[in-house]
Amino acid sequence: MSLVIVGSVAFDTIRTPWGDREKIVGGSGTYCSLAASYFTKPRIVGVVGRDFPRKTLALLRARGVDLEGLRIKAGKTFHWEGRYDQDPNKRTTLRTELNVFADFRPTVPERYRGSRIVYLANLNPEHHDFVLGQFRKPALVAMDTIRLWIDTKRDVLLKELGRVDIFFANDEEARLITGEANLIAAGRALVRLGPSLVLLKKGEHGALVFGRDSVFGVLAHPCEHVIDPTGAGDSFAGGFLGYLDRADGLRVKDVRKAAVYGSVLASFAIEDFGIGRFLTLEPGLVEARFRQFRKMTTF
Amino acid sequence: MSLVIVGSVAFDTIRTPWGDREKIVGGSGTYCSLAASYFTKPRIVGVVGRDFPRKTLALLRARGVDLEGLRIKAGKTFHWEGRYDQDPNKRTTLRTELNVFADFRPTVPERYRGSRIVYLANLNPEHHDFVLGQFRKPALVAMDTIRLWIDTKRDVLLKELGRVDIFFANDEEARLITGEANLIAAGRALVRLGPSLVLLKKGEHGALVFGRDSVFGVLAHPCEHVIDPTGAGDSFAGGFLGYLDRADGLRVKDVRKAAVYGSVLASFAIEDFGIGRFLTLEPGLVEARFRQFRKMTTF
Repeated sequence: MSLVIVGSVAFDTIRTPWGDREKIVGGSGTYCSLAASYFTKPRIVGVVGRDFPRKTLALLRARGVDLEGLRIKAGKTFHWEGRYDQDPNKRTTLRTELNVFADFRPTVPERYRGSRIVYLANLNPEHHDFVLGQFRKPALVAMDTIRLWIDTKRDVLLKELGRVDIFFANDEEARLITGEANLIAAGRALVRLGPSLVLLKKGEHGALVFGRDSVFGVLAHPCEHVIDPTGAGDSFAGGFLGYLDRADGLRVKDVRKAAVYGSVLASFAIEDFGIGRFLTLEPGLVEARFRQFRKMTTF
Repeated sequence: MSLVIVGSVAFDTIRTPWGDREKIVGGSGTYCSLAASYFTKPRIVGVVGRDFPRKTLALLRARGVDLEGLRIKAGKTFHWEGRYDQDPNKRTTLRTELNVFADFRPTVPERYRGSRIVYLANLNPEHHDFVLGQFRKPALVAMDTIRLWIDTKRDVLLKELGRVDIFFANDEEARLITGEANLIAAGRALVRLGPSLVLLKKGEHGALVFGRDSVFGVLAHPCEHVIDPTGAGDSFAGGFLGYLDRADGLRVKDVRKAAVYGSVLASFAIEDFGIGRFLTLEPGLVEARFRQFRKMTTF
Protein backbone atom coordinates (compact mmCIF):
# COMPACT_ATOMS: atom_id res chain seq x y z
CA MET A 1 0.00 0.00 0.00
CA SER A 2 1.64 3.23 -1.14
CA LEU A 3 0.22 6.26 -2.91
CA VAL A 4 2.33 9.34 -3.57
CA ILE A 5 0.52 12.59 -4.35
CA VAL A 6 2.57 15.28 -6.07
CA GLY A 7 0.59 18.49 -5.88
CA SER A 8 0.03 21.88 -4.37
CA VAL A 9 -0.46 22.66 -0.72
CA ALA A 10 -1.77 26.18 -0.78
CA PHE A 11 -3.90 29.06 0.39
CA ASP A 12 -7.21 29.78 -1.35
CA THR A 13 -9.31 32.90 -1.20
CA ILE A 14 -12.85 31.97 -2.12
CA ARG A 15 -15.64 34.37 -3.11
CA THR A 16 -19.20 33.11 -3.39
CA PRO A 17 -22.62 34.79 -3.41
CA TRP A 18 -23.17 33.40 0.14
CA GLY A 19 -19.86 34.41 1.69
CA ASP A 20 -16.11 34.84 1.31
CA ARG A 21 -13.10 33.20 2.93
CA GLU A 22 -9.64 34.80 2.93
CA LYS A 23 -6.53 32.63 2.62
CA ILE A 24 -7.91 29.37 3.92
CA VAL A 25 -5.97 26.14 3.46
CA GLY A 26 -6.45 24.46 0.08
CA GLY A 27 -4.43 22.95 -2.76
CA SER A 28 -4.71 19.80 -4.84
CA GLY A 29 -2.33 17.82 -2.64
CA THR A 30 -4.18 18.81 0.52
CA TYR A 31 -7.66 17.82 -0.72
CA CYS A 32 -6.40 14.69 -2.45
CA SER A 33 -4.45 13.41 0.56
CA LEU A 34 -7.27 14.11 3.00
CA ALA A 35 -9.72 12.19 0.79
CA ALA A 36 -7.25 9.34 0.27
CA SER A 37 -6.57 9.15 4.01
CA TYR A 38 -9.89 7.34 4.47
CA PHE A 39 -8.37 4.32 2.71
CA THR A 40 -4.59 4.48 2.91
CA LYS A 41 -1.63 6.45 4.29
CA PRO A 42 -0.95 8.84 1.40
CA ARG A 43 2.43 10.47 0.92
CA ILE A 44 2.63 14.10 -0.18
CA VAL A 45 5.32 15.64 -2.34
CA GLY A 46 4.99 19.41 -2.38
CA VAL A 47 6.21 22.73 -1.07
CA VAL A 48 4.87 25.44 1.23
CA GLY A 49 6.27 28.72 2.50
CA ARG A 50 7.13 29.50 6.08
CA ASP A 51 3.75 31.25 6.39
CA PHE A 52 1.90 27.93 6.19
CA PRO A 53 0.18 27.05 9.49
CA ARG A 54 1.93 24.32 11.55
CA LYS A 55 -1.51 23.45 12.90
CA THR A 56 -2.63 22.24 9.46
CA LEU A 57 0.47 20.10 9.08
CA ALA A 58 -0.24 18.51 12.47
CA LEU A 59 -3.80 17.90 11.37
CA LEU A 60 -2.71 16.18 8.14
CA ARG A 61 -0.32 14.00 10.13
CA ALA A 62 -3.10 13.12 12.54
CA ARG A 63 -5.15 11.92 9.55
CA GLY A 64 -2.30 9.59 8.60
CA VAL A 65 -0.83 11.72 5.81
CA ASP A 66 2.95 11.23 5.40
CA LEU A 67 4.60 14.66 5.05
CA GLU A 68 8.23 13.69 4.59
CA GLY A 69 8.01 14.88 0.97
CA LEU A 70 6.56 18.29 1.85
CA ARG A 71 9.29 20.93 1.82
CA ILE A 72 8.99 24.11 3.85
CA LYS A 73 10.85 26.84 1.98
CA ALA A 74 11.67 30.44 2.74
CA GLY A 75 9.01 32.53 1.02
CA LYS A 76 5.25 32.60 0.71
CA THR A 77 2.86 29.73 0.05
CA PHE A 78 1.02 29.38 -3.30
CA HIS A 79 -2.14 31.51 -3.17
CA TRP A 80 -5.13 31.18 -5.48
CA GLU A 81 -8.17 33.43 -5.48
CA GLY A 82 -11.37 32.54 -7.25
CA ARG A 83 -15.03 33.41 -7.48
CA TYR A 84 -18.12 31.24 -7.94
CA ASP A 85 -21.46 32.63 -9.02
CA GLN A 86 -24.83 30.89 -8.81
CA ASP A 87 -23.66 28.00 -11.00
CA PRO A 88 -21.03 26.16 -8.93
CA ASN A 89 -19.75 24.42 -12.08
CA LYS A 90 -18.31 27.71 -13.33
CA ARG A 91 -15.47 29.51 -11.62
CA THR A 92 -13.43 32.58 -12.36
CA THR A 93 -9.79 32.81 -11.31
CA LEU A 94 -9.15 36.27 -9.86
CA ARG A 95 -5.52 35.82 -8.86
CA THR A 96 -2.76 33.18 -8.94
CA GLU A 97 0.37 33.86 -6.88
CA LEU A 98 2.62 30.84 -7.44
CA ASN A 99 5.22 32.02 -4.87
CA VAL A 100 7.36 29.06 -3.67
CA PHE A 101 5.43 26.78 -6.09
CA ALA A 102 6.77 28.72 -9.13
CA ASP A 103 10.02 26.80 -9.56
CA PHE A 104 8.87 23.66 -7.78
CA ARG A 105 11.13 20.81 -8.98
CA PRO A 106 10.33 18.31 -6.29
CA THR A 107 12.80 15.83 -4.88
CA VAL A 108 11.10 12.57 -3.99
CA PRO A 109 12.26 11.14 -0.64
CA GLU A 110 14.15 7.86 -0.96
CA ARG A 111 11.50 6.11 1.11
CA TYR A 112 8.78 7.03 -1.44
CA ARG A 113 10.62 5.84 -4.56
CA GLY A 114 9.26 2.32 -4.61
CA SER A 115 5.63 3.49 -4.27
CA ARG A 116 2.90 1.64 -6.15
CA ILE A 117 0.76 4.59 -7.30
CA VAL A 118 2.03 8.03 -8.30
CA TYR A 119 -0.42 10.88 -8.80
CA LEU A 120 0.70 14.05 -10.57
CA ALA A 121 -1.99 16.54 -9.63
CA ASN A 122 -1.72 20.00 -11.19
CA LEU A 123 1.96 19.87 -12.05
CA ASN A 124 3.53 21.65 -15.00
CA PRO A 125 3.71 18.73 -17.50
CA GLU A 126 7.29 19.74 -18.33
CA HIS A 127 8.26 18.57 -14.85
CA HIS A 128 6.68 15.10 -15.12
CA ASP A 129 9.89 13.57 -16.47
CA PHE A 130 11.93 14.90 -13.59
CA VAL A 131 9.44 13.62 -11.01
CA LEU A 132 8.68 10.22 -12.56
CA GLY A 133 12.39 9.61 -13.17
CA GLN A 134 12.87 9.40 -9.41
CA PHE A 135 10.45 6.48 -8.97
CA ARG A 136 11.52 2.89 -9.53
CA LYS A 137 8.62 1.20 -11.20
CA PRO A 138 5.22 2.48 -10.11
CA ALA A 139 2.36 0.11 -10.98
CA LEU A 140 0.10 3.05 -11.81
CA VAL A 141 0.78 6.63 -12.83
CA ALA A 142 -2.18 9.00 -12.70
CA MET A 143 -2.42 12.65 -13.67
CA ASP A 144 -4.79 15.57 -13.56
CA THR A 145 -4.22 18.92 -15.19
CA ILE A 146 -5.47 22.49 -15.17
CA ARG A 147 -6.60 24.82 -17.91
CA LEU A 148 -3.37 26.79 -17.62
CA TRP A 149 -1.30 23.85 -18.97
CA ILE A 150 -3.86 23.04 -21.69
CA ASP A 151 -3.61 26.62 -22.91
CA THR A 152 0.15 27.07 -22.57
CA LYS A 153 1.82 23.61 -22.74
CA ARG A 154 -0.51 21.71 -25.05
CA ASP A 155 2.12 19.64 -26.89
CA VAL A 156 3.92 18.51 -23.73
CA LEU A 157 0.56 17.72 -22.12
CA LEU A 158 -0.48 15.51 -25.06
CA LYS A 159 2.84 13.69 -24.91
CA GLU A 160 2.41 13.09 -21.16
CA LEU A 161 -1.08 11.63 -21.77
CA GLY A 162 0.67 8.96 -23.78
CA ARG A 163 2.63 7.70 -20.77
CA VAL A 164 0.14 7.74 -17.89
CA ASP A 165 -2.34 5.00 -16.96
CA ILE A 166 -5.08 7.15 -15.49
CA PHE A 167 -6.20 10.65 -16.44
CA PHE A 168 -8.65 12.85 -14.55
CA ALA A 169 -10.37 15.67 -16.45
CA ASN A 170 -13.44 17.77 -15.92
CA ASP A 171 -15.89 18.39 -18.76
CA GLU A 172 -14.32 21.70 -19.81
CA GLU A 173 -10.79 20.25 -19.86
CA ALA A 174 -11.91 17.16 -21.80
CA ARG A 175 -13.53 19.36 -24.45
CA LEU A 176 -10.54 21.70 -24.68
CA ILE A 177 -8.03 18.88 -25.08
CA THR A 178 -9.98 16.83 -27.63
CA GLY A 179 -12.02 19.47 -29.46
CA GLU A 180 -15.09 17.24 -29.04
CA ALA A 181 -18.24 18.94 -27.70
CA ASN A 182 -19.98 15.61 -26.97
CA LEU A 183 -18.62 14.24 -23.68
CA ILE A 184 -18.82 10.59 -24.73
CA ALA A 185 -16.79 11.37 -27.83
CA ALA A 186 -14.38 13.46 -25.72
CA GLY A 187 -13.89 10.69 -23.15
CA ARG A 188 -13.22 8.09 -25.83
CA ALA A 189 -10.83 10.44 -27.62
CA LEU A 190 -8.87 10.88 -24.37
CA VAL A 191 -8.52 7.11 -24.01
CA ARG A 192 -7.15 7.00 -27.56
CA LEU A 193 -4.49 9.52 -26.50
CA GLY A 194 -3.00 6.98 -24.12
CA PRO A 195 -4.47 6.44 -20.65
CA SER A 196 -6.19 3.10 -20.12
CA LEU A 197 -8.64 4.81 -17.76
CA VAL A 198 -10.14 8.28 -18.11
CA LEU A 199 -12.19 9.75 -15.28
CA LEU A 200 -14.41 12.47 -16.69
CA LYS A 201 -15.78 14.62 -13.86
CA LYS A 202 -19.09 16.40 -14.49
CA GLY A 203 -19.72 18.22 -11.20
CA GLU A 204 -23.38 17.93 -10.18
CA HIS A 205 -23.90 15.32 -12.91
CA GLY A 206 -21.37 12.86 -11.48
CA ALA A 207 -18.60 11.25 -13.47
CA LEU A 208 -17.98 8.86 -16.35
CA VAL A 209 -15.23 6.26 -16.33
CA PHE A 210 -13.92 5.38 -19.77
CA GLY A 211 -11.85 2.26 -20.33
CA ARG A 212 -10.59 0.79 -23.61
CA ASP A 213 -14.04 -0.60 -24.48
CA SER A 214 -16.25 0.40 -21.59
CA VAL A 215 -18.14 3.24 -20.00
CA PHE A 216 -19.18 3.26 -16.36
CA GLY A 217 -21.30 6.02 -14.88
CA VAL A 218 -21.34 7.40 -11.34
CA LEU A 219 -23.85 9.89 -10.01
CA ALA A 220 -23.11 12.83 -7.78
CA HIS A 221 -24.57 12.84 -4.29
CA PRO A 222 -27.75 14.93 -4.40
CA CYS A 223 -26.64 18.18 -2.75
CA GLU A 224 -29.14 21.03 -2.52
CA HIS A 225 -26.64 23.73 -1.66
CA VAL A 226 -23.01 23.57 -2.71
CA ILE A 227 -21.01 25.76 -0.30
CA ASP A 228 -17.58 25.66 -1.98
CA PRO A 229 -16.82 23.50 -5.03
CA THR A 230 -13.05 24.07 -4.67
CA GLY A 231 -11.21 20.79 -4.26
CA ALA A 232 -14.08 18.57 -5.44
CA GLY A 233 -12.00 17.20 -8.32
CA ASP A 234 -8.94 16.64 -6.13
CA SER A 235 -11.08 14.92 -3.50
CA PHE A 236 -12.53 12.72 -6.24
CA ALA A 237 -9.01 11.73 -7.28
CA GLY A 238 -8.04 11.14 -3.64
CA GLY A 239 -11.02 8.90 -2.96
CA PHE A 240 -10.47 7.04 -6.23
CA LEU A 241 -6.73 6.46 -5.86
CA GLY A 242 -6.89 5.92 -2.11
CA TYR A 243 -9.43 3.14 -2.57
CA LEU A 244 -7.43 1.61 -5.45
CA ASP A 245 -4.33 1.63 -3.26
CA ARG A 246 -6.19 -0.21 -0.51
CA ALA A 247 -7.86 -2.64 -2.96
CA ASP A 248 -4.40 -3.50 -4.27
CA GLY A 249 -5.73 -4.46 -7.69
CA LEU A 250 -7.22 -3.01 -10.82
CA ARG A 251 -10.11 -5.35 -11.52
CA VAL A 252 -13.23 -3.83 -13.08
CA LYS A 253 -14.96 -4.10 -9.71
CA ASP A 254 -12.16 -2.24 -7.93
CA VAL A 255 -12.20 0.59 -10.46
CA ARG A 256 -15.98 0.98 -10.20
CA LYS A 257 -16.01 1.05 -6.42
CA ALA A 258 -13.07 3.45 -6.50
CA ALA A 259 -15.02 5.81 -8.77
CA VAL A 260 -18.01 5.73 -6.43
CA TYR A 261 -15.75 6.48 -3.45
CA GLY A 262 -14.29 9.33 -5.50
CA SER A 263 -17.77 10.78 -5.96
CA VAL A 264 -18.54 10.22 -2.25
CA LEU A 265 -15.43 12.08 -1.08
CA ALA A 266 -16.04 14.92 -3.57
CA SER A 267 -19.58 15.25 -2.23
CA PHE A 268 -18.26 15.90 1.27
CA ALA A 269 -15.61 18.38 0.09
CA ILE A 270 -18.23 20.78 -1.30
CA GLU A 271 -20.34 20.87 1.87
CA ASP A 272 -18.12 23.45 3.58
CA PHE A 273 -15.51 26.07 2.71
CA GLY A 274 -12.01 24.71 2.13
CA ILE A 275 -11.11 21.48 3.86
CA GLY A 276 -13.60 22.25 6.66
CA ARG A 277 -15.82 19.23 6.07
CA PHE A 278 -12.90 16.79 6.28
CA LEU A 279 -11.99 18.04 9.75
CA THR A 280 -15.01 16.42 11.35
CA LEU A 281 -15.81 13.67 8.84
CA GLU A 282 -15.95 10.22 10.45
CA PRO A 283 -15.08 7.14 8.35
CA GLY A 284 -18.53 5.76 9.19
CA LEU A 285 -20.14 8.63 7.29
CA VAL A 286 -18.06 7.84 4.20
CA GLU A 287 -19.28 4.25 4.30
CA ALA A 288 -22.88 5.33 4.91
CA ARG A 289 -22.83 7.62 1.88
CA PHE A 290 -21.26 4.87 -0.24
CA ARG A 291 -24.25 2.69 0.67
CA GLN A 292 -26.61 5.55 -0.22
CA PHE A 293 -25.00 5.73 -3.68
CA ARG A 294 -25.76 2.07 -4.18
CA LYS A 295 -29.34 2.59 -3.06
CA MET A 296 -29.68 5.60 -5.35
CA THR A 297 -28.74 3.66 -8.50
CA THR A 298 -29.97 0.11 -7.92
CA PHE A 299 -32.92 -1.02 -9.99
CA MET B 1 -53.50 -2.42 -18.74
CA SER B 2 -54.56 0.93 -20.17
CA LEU B 3 -52.58 4.08 -20.84
CA VAL B 4 -54.12 7.09 -22.54
CA ILE B 5 -51.79 9.67 -24.07
CA VAL B 6 -53.28 13.09 -24.75
CA GLY B 7 -50.84 14.97 -26.92
CA SER B 8 -49.87 16.30 -30.28
CA VAL B 9 -49.48 14.32 -33.47
CA ALA B 10 -47.63 16.68 -35.72
CA PHE B 11 -45.14 17.65 -38.39
CA ASP B 12 -41.67 18.82 -37.39
CA THR B 13 -39.12 20.64 -39.48
CA ILE B 14 -35.70 20.03 -37.97
CA ARG B 15 -32.54 21.99 -38.68
CA THR B 16 -29.19 20.70 -37.41
CA PRO B 17 -25.56 21.37 -38.32
CA TRP B 18 -25.46 17.90 -39.96
CA GLY B 19 -28.66 18.07 -41.97
CA ASP B 20 -32.26 19.27 -42.21
CA ARG B 21 -35.59 17.48 -42.48
CA GLU B 22 -38.75 19.17 -43.77
CA LYS B 23 -42.14 18.31 -42.27
CA ILE B 24 -41.36 14.87 -40.95
CA VAL B 25 -43.76 13.15 -38.55
CA GLY B 26 -43.35 14.14 -34.89
CA GLY B 27 -45.41 15.28 -31.94
CA SER B 28 -45.48 14.36 -28.26
CA GLY B 29 -48.28 11.83 -28.69
CA THR B 30 -46.49 10.11 -31.56
CA TYR B 31 -43.14 9.69 -29.78
CA CYS B 32 -44.76 8.80 -26.48
CA SER B 33 -47.06 6.17 -27.92
CA LEU B 34 -44.34 4.57 -30.03
CA ALA B 35 -42.08 4.29 -26.96
CA ALA B 36 -44.94 2.98 -24.80
CA SER B 37 -45.86 0.43 -27.46
CA TYR B 38 -42.89 -1.71 -26.38
CA PHE B 39 -44.77 -2.46 -23.14
CA THR B 40 -48.49 -1.88 -23.61
CA LYS B 41 -51.16 -0.94 -26.13
CA PRO B 42 -51.28 2.84 -25.67
CA ARG B 43 -54.33 4.88 -26.61
CA ILE B 44 -53.88 8.28 -28.26
CA VAL B 45 -56.17 11.26 -27.89
CA GLY B 46 -55.24 13.95 -30.37
CA VAL B 47 -56.02 15.67 -33.64
CA VAL B 48 -54.44 15.86 -37.08
CA GLY B 49 -55.37 17.60 -40.31
CA ARG B 50 -56.31 15.89 -43.53
CA ASP B 51 -52.73 16.41 -44.73
CA PHE B 52 -51.40 13.84 -42.23
CA PRO B 53 -50.08 10.68 -43.96
CA ARG B 54 -52.34 7.61 -43.73
CA LYS B 55 -49.18 5.53 -43.92
CA THR B 56 -48.04 6.82 -40.52
CA LEU B 57 -51.42 6.01 -39.00
CA ALA B 58 -51.17 2.47 -40.36
CA LEU B 59 -47.69 2.22 -38.92
CA LEU B 60 -48.82 3.33 -35.46
CA ARG B 61 -51.66 0.80 -35.60
CA ALA B 62 -49.20 -1.92 -36.62
CA ARG B 63 -47.17 -1.09 -33.49
CA GLY B 64 -50.28 -1.67 -31.38
CA VAL B 65 -51.24 1.98 -30.85
CA ASP B 66 -54.98 2.50 -30.46
CA LEU B 67 -56.05 5.47 -32.61
CA GLU B 68 -59.77 5.63 -31.82
CA GLY B 69 -59.13 8.91 -29.96
CA LEU B 70 -57.24 10.55 -32.83
CA ARG B 71 -59.52 12.89 -34.76
CA ILE B 72 -58.86 13.77 -38.36
CA LYS B 73 -60.12 17.31 -38.94
CA ALA B 74 -60.44 19.54 -41.97
CA GLY B 75 -57.37 21.78 -41.96
CA LYS B 76 -53.63 21.44 -41.54
CA THR B 77 -51.69 19.42 -38.98
CA PHE B 78 -49.72 21.14 -36.18
CA HIS B 79 -46.29 22.10 -37.54
CA TRP B 80 -43.25 22.95 -35.46
CA GLU B 81 -39.89 24.08 -36.77
CA GLY B 82 -36.75 24.14 -34.65
CA ARG B 83 -33.01 24.35 -34.85
CA TYR B 84 -30.27 22.61 -32.87
CA ASP B 85 -26.69 23.82 -32.81
CA GLN B 86 -23.65 21.87 -31.58
CA ASP B 87 -25.12 21.46 -28.09
CA PRO B 88 -28.14 19.14 -28.53
CA ASN B 89 -29.49 20.22 -25.12
CA LYS B 90 -30.31 23.67 -26.52
CA ARG B 91 -32.92 24.25 -29.14
CA THR B 92 -34.41 27.30 -30.80
CA THR B 93 -38.02 27.32 -31.95
CA LEU B 94 -38.19 28.94 -35.37
CA ARG B 95 -41.92 28.52 -36.03
CA THR B 96 -45.04 27.11 -34.37
CA GLU B 97 -48.15 26.71 -36.52
CA LEU B 98 -50.81 25.26 -34.23
CA ASN B 99 -53.34 24.79 -37.08
CA VAL B 100 -56.00 22.17 -36.07
CA PHE B 101 -54.31 21.86 -32.63
CA ALA B 102 -55.12 25.52 -31.81
CA ASP B 103 -58.58 24.93 -30.39
CA PHE B 104 -58.06 21.27 -29.53
CA ARG B 105 -60.63 20.39 -26.85
CA PRO B 106 -60.44 16.64 -27.08
CA THR B 107 -63.34 14.29 -26.60
CA VAL B 108 -62.24 11.07 -24.95
CA PRO B 109 -63.80 7.96 -26.53
CA GLU B 110 -66.18 6.12 -24.18
CA ARG B 111 -63.94 3.03 -24.37
CA TYR B 112 -60.96 5.00 -22.95
CA ARG B 113 -62.77 6.54 -19.98
CA GLY B 114 -62.00 3.80 -17.48
CA SER B 115 -58.25 3.86 -18.29
CA ARG B 116 -55.74 3.39 -15.50
CA ILE B 117 -53.10 5.93 -16.51
CA VAL B 118 -53.75 9.28 -18.17
CA TYR B 119 -50.85 11.28 -19.58
CA LEU B 120 -51.36 14.93 -20.48
CA ALA B 121 -48.37 15.68 -22.71
CA ASN B 122 -48.01 19.27 -23.89
CA LEU B 123 -51.61 20.34 -23.39
CA ASN B 124 -52.68 23.86 -22.51
CA PRO B 125 -53.16 23.45 -18.73
CA GLU B 126 -56.49 25.31 -19.00
CA HIS B 127 -57.84 22.26 -20.85
CA HIS B 128 -56.81 19.70 -18.22
CA ASP B 129 -60.13 20.03 -16.39
CA PHE B 130 -62.12 19.36 -19.52
CA VAL B 131 -60.04 16.30 -20.40
CA LEU B 132 -59.71 14.78 -16.93
CA GLY B 133 -63.43 15.33 -16.27
CA GLN B 134 -64.18 12.72 -18.93
CA PHE B 135 -62.27 9.94 -17.15
CA ARG B 136 -63.83 7.89 -14.38
CA LYS B 137 -61.10 7.36 -11.82
CA PRO B 138 -57.64 7.01 -13.29
CA ALA B 139 -55.15 5.43 -10.87
CA LEU B 140 -52.42 7.75 -12.11
CA VAL B 141 -52.46 11.12 -13.81
CA ALA B 142 -49.17 12.27 -15.33
CA MET B 143 -48.32 15.52 -17.08
CA ASP B 144 -45.53 17.19 -18.98
CA THR B 145 -45.47 20.79 -20.08
CA ILE B 146 -43.69 23.15 -22.43
CA ARG B 147 -42.02 26.49 -21.90
CA LEU B 148 -44.93 28.26 -23.63
CA TRP B 149 -47.33 27.35 -20.77
CA ILE B 150 -44.77 28.18 -18.07
CA ASP B 151 -44.38 31.64 -19.60
CA THR B 152 -48.03 32.32 -20.38
CA LYS B 153 -50.21 30.21 -18.03
CA ARG B 154 -48.06 30.02 -14.91
CA ASP B 155 -50.87 30.18 -12.34
CA VAL B 156 -53.01 27.52 -14.01
CA LEU B 157 -49.95 25.34 -14.45
CA LEU B 158 -49.05 25.56 -10.74
CA LYS B 159 -52.65 24.67 -9.83
CA GLU B 160 -52.53 21.64 -12.15
CA LEU B 161 -49.31 20.45 -10.52
CA GLY B 162 -51.33 20.16 -7.33
CA ARG B 163 -53.64 17.54 -8.84
CA VAL B 164 -51.36 15.22 -10.81
CA ASP B 165 -49.40 12.24 -9.51
CA ILE B 166 -46.44 12.36 -11.88
CA PHE B 167 -44.73 15.35 -13.45
CA PHE B 168 -42.10 15.27 -16.19
CA ALA B 169 -39.83 18.31 -16.58
CA ASN B 170 -36.50 19.00 -18.20
CA ASP B 171 -33.82 20.98 -16.38
CA GLU B 172 -34.79 24.31 -17.93
CA GLU B 173 -38.48 23.85 -17.12
CA ALA B 174 -37.74 22.75 -13.54
CA ARG B 175 -35.64 25.87 -12.98
CA LEU B 176 -38.21 28.19 -14.57
CA ILE B 177 -41.11 26.82 -12.53
CA THR B 178 -39.35 26.75 -9.16
CA GLY B 179 -36.82 29.58 -9.47
CA GLU B 180 -34.15 27.19 -8.09
CA ALA B 181 -30.87 27.01 -10.03
CA ASN B 182 -29.73 23.84 -8.21
CA LEU B 183 -31.49 20.86 -9.80
CA ILE B 184 -31.78 18.91 -6.55
CA ALA B 185 -33.48 21.88 -4.91
CA ALA B 186 -35.66 22.34 -8.02
CA GLY B 187 -36.74 18.69 -8.07
CA ARG B 188 -37.65 18.72 -4.39
CA ALA B 189 -39.52 22.01 -4.81
CA LEU B 190 -41.57 20.44 -7.62
CA VAL B 191 -42.53 17.53 -5.36
CA ARG B 192 -43.70 20.06 -2.75
CA LEU B 193 -45.98 21.59 -5.40
CA GLY B 194 -48.01 18.39 -5.55
CA PRO B 195 -46.83 15.43 -7.64
CA SER B 196 -45.70 12.41 -5.66
CA LEU B 197 -43.16 11.66 -8.39
CA VAL B 198 -41.13 14.15 -10.39
CA LEU B 199 -39.05 12.97 -13.33
CA LEU B 200 -36.35 15.55 -14.01
CA LYS B 201 -34.83 14.96 -17.43
CA LYS B 202 -31.25 16.16 -17.97
CA GLY B 203 -30.52 15.16 -21.58
CA GLU B 204 -27.04 13.68 -21.92
CA HIS B 205 -26.76 13.55 -18.11
CA GLY B 206 -29.73 11.22 -17.66
CA ALA B 207 -32.61 11.83 -15.28
CA LEU B 208 -33.41 12.14 -11.60
CA VAL B 209 -36.54 10.68 -10.03
CA PHE B 210 -37.76 12.59 -6.98
CA GLY B 211 -40.25 11.03 -4.59
CA ARG B 212 -41.53 12.39 -1.27
CA ASP B 213 -38.29 11.45 0.54
CA SER B 214 -36.13 9.87 -2.12
CA VAL B 215 -33.93 10.54 -5.10
CA PHE B 216 -33.12 7.94 -7.72
CA GLY B 217 -30.69 8.58 -10.55
CA VAL B 218 -30.65 7.19 -14.09
CA LEU B 219 -27.87 7.69 -16.59
CA ALA B 220 -28.27 8.42 -20.25
CA HIS B 221 -27.04 5.85 -22.75
CA PRO B 222 -23.56 6.92 -23.89
CA CYS B 223 -24.24 8.34 -27.34
CA GLU B 224 -21.35 9.85 -29.30
CA HIS B 225 -23.44 11.62 -31.90
CA VAL B 226 -26.98 12.78 -31.25
CA ILE B 227 -28.76 13.04 -34.61
CA ASP B 228 -32.06 14.62 -33.53
CA PRO B 229 -32.96 15.25 -29.87
CA THR B 230 -36.60 16.02 -30.74
CA GLY B 231 -38.95 13.66 -28.96
CA ALA B 232 -36.39 12.41 -26.42
CA GLY B 233 -38.47 13.69 -23.50
CA ASP B 234 -41.71 12.28 -24.92
CA SER B 235 -40.06 8.93 -25.56
CA PHE B 236 -38.79 8.97 -21.97
CA ALA B 237 -42.36 9.52 -20.75
CA GLY B 238 -43.63 6.78 -23.08
CA GLY B 239 -41.08 4.24 -21.90
CA PHE B 240 -41.72 5.19 -18.26
CA LEU B 241 -45.51 5.12 -18.38
CA GLY B 242 -45.67 2.18 -20.75
CA TYR B 243 -43.59 0.08 -18.39
CA LEU B 244 -45.62 1.24 -15.37
CA ASP B 245 -48.81 0.26 -17.18
CA ARG B 246 -47.45 -3.20 -17.84
CA ALA B 247 -46.02 -3.56 -14.30
CA ASP B 248 -49.50 -2.76 -12.99
CA GLY B 249 -48.10 -1.37 -9.73
CA LEU B 250 -46.24 1.57 -8.31
CA ARG B 251 -43.71 -0.10 -6.04
CA VAL B 252 -40.30 1.55 -5.73
CA LYS B 253 -38.84 -1.18 -7.90
CA ASP B 254 -41.42 -0.62 -10.65
CA VAL B 255 -40.78 3.13 -10.70
CA ARG B 256 -37.01 2.65 -10.93
CA LYS B 257 -37.20 0.13 -13.74
CA ALA B 258 -39.71 2.37 -15.50
CA ALA B 259 -37.28 5.30 -15.30
CA VAL B 260 -34.49 3.20 -16.78
CA TYR B 261 -36.78 2.07 -19.60
CA GLY B 262 -37.63 5.75 -20.11
CA SER B 263 -33.96 6.55 -20.54
CA VAL B 264 -33.51 3.54 -22.84
CA LEU B 265 -36.36 4.57 -25.16
CA ALA B 266 -35.16 8.20 -25.20
CA SER B 267 -31.71 6.98 -26.19
CA PHE B 268 -33.12 5.30 -29.29
CA ALA B 269 -35.26 8.31 -30.25
CA ILE B 270 -32.21 10.56 -30.69
CA GLU B 271 -30.32 8.16 -32.95
CA ASP B 272 -32.21 9.21 -36.08
CA PHE B 273 -34.32 12.09 -37.37
CA GLY B 274 -37.94 12.06 -36.23
CA ILE B 275 -39.46 8.68 -35.41
CA GLY B 276 -37.05 6.98 -37.80
CA ARG B 277 -35.31 4.84 -35.22
CA PHE B 278 -38.59 3.40 -33.92
CA LEU B 279 -39.51 2.11 -37.36
CA THR B 280 -36.87 -0.62 -37.25
CA LEU B 281 -36.37 -1.02 -33.50
CA GLU B 282 -36.84 -4.62 -32.33
CA PRO B 283 -38.07 -5.29 -28.76
CA GLY B 284 -34.94 -7.39 -28.24
CA LEU B 285 -32.77 -4.29 -28.68
CA VAL B 286 -34.77 -2.46 -26.01
CA GLU B 287 -34.13 -5.30 -23.57
CA ALA B 288 -30.44 -5.50 -24.53
CA ARG B 289 -29.94 -1.80 -23.86
CA PHE B 290 -31.80 -2.11 -20.53
CA ARG B 291 -29.26 -4.76 -19.52
CA GLN B 292 -26.42 -2.47 -20.68
CA PHE B 293 -27.76 0.24 -18.36
CA ARG B 294 -27.57 -2.18 -15.45
CA LYS B 295 -24.03 -3.12 -16.41
CA MET B 296 -23.08 0.54 -16.74
CA THR B 297 -24.12 1.41 -13.18
CA THR B 298 -23.51 -1.74 -11.14
CA PHE B 299 -20.62 -1.62 -8.69
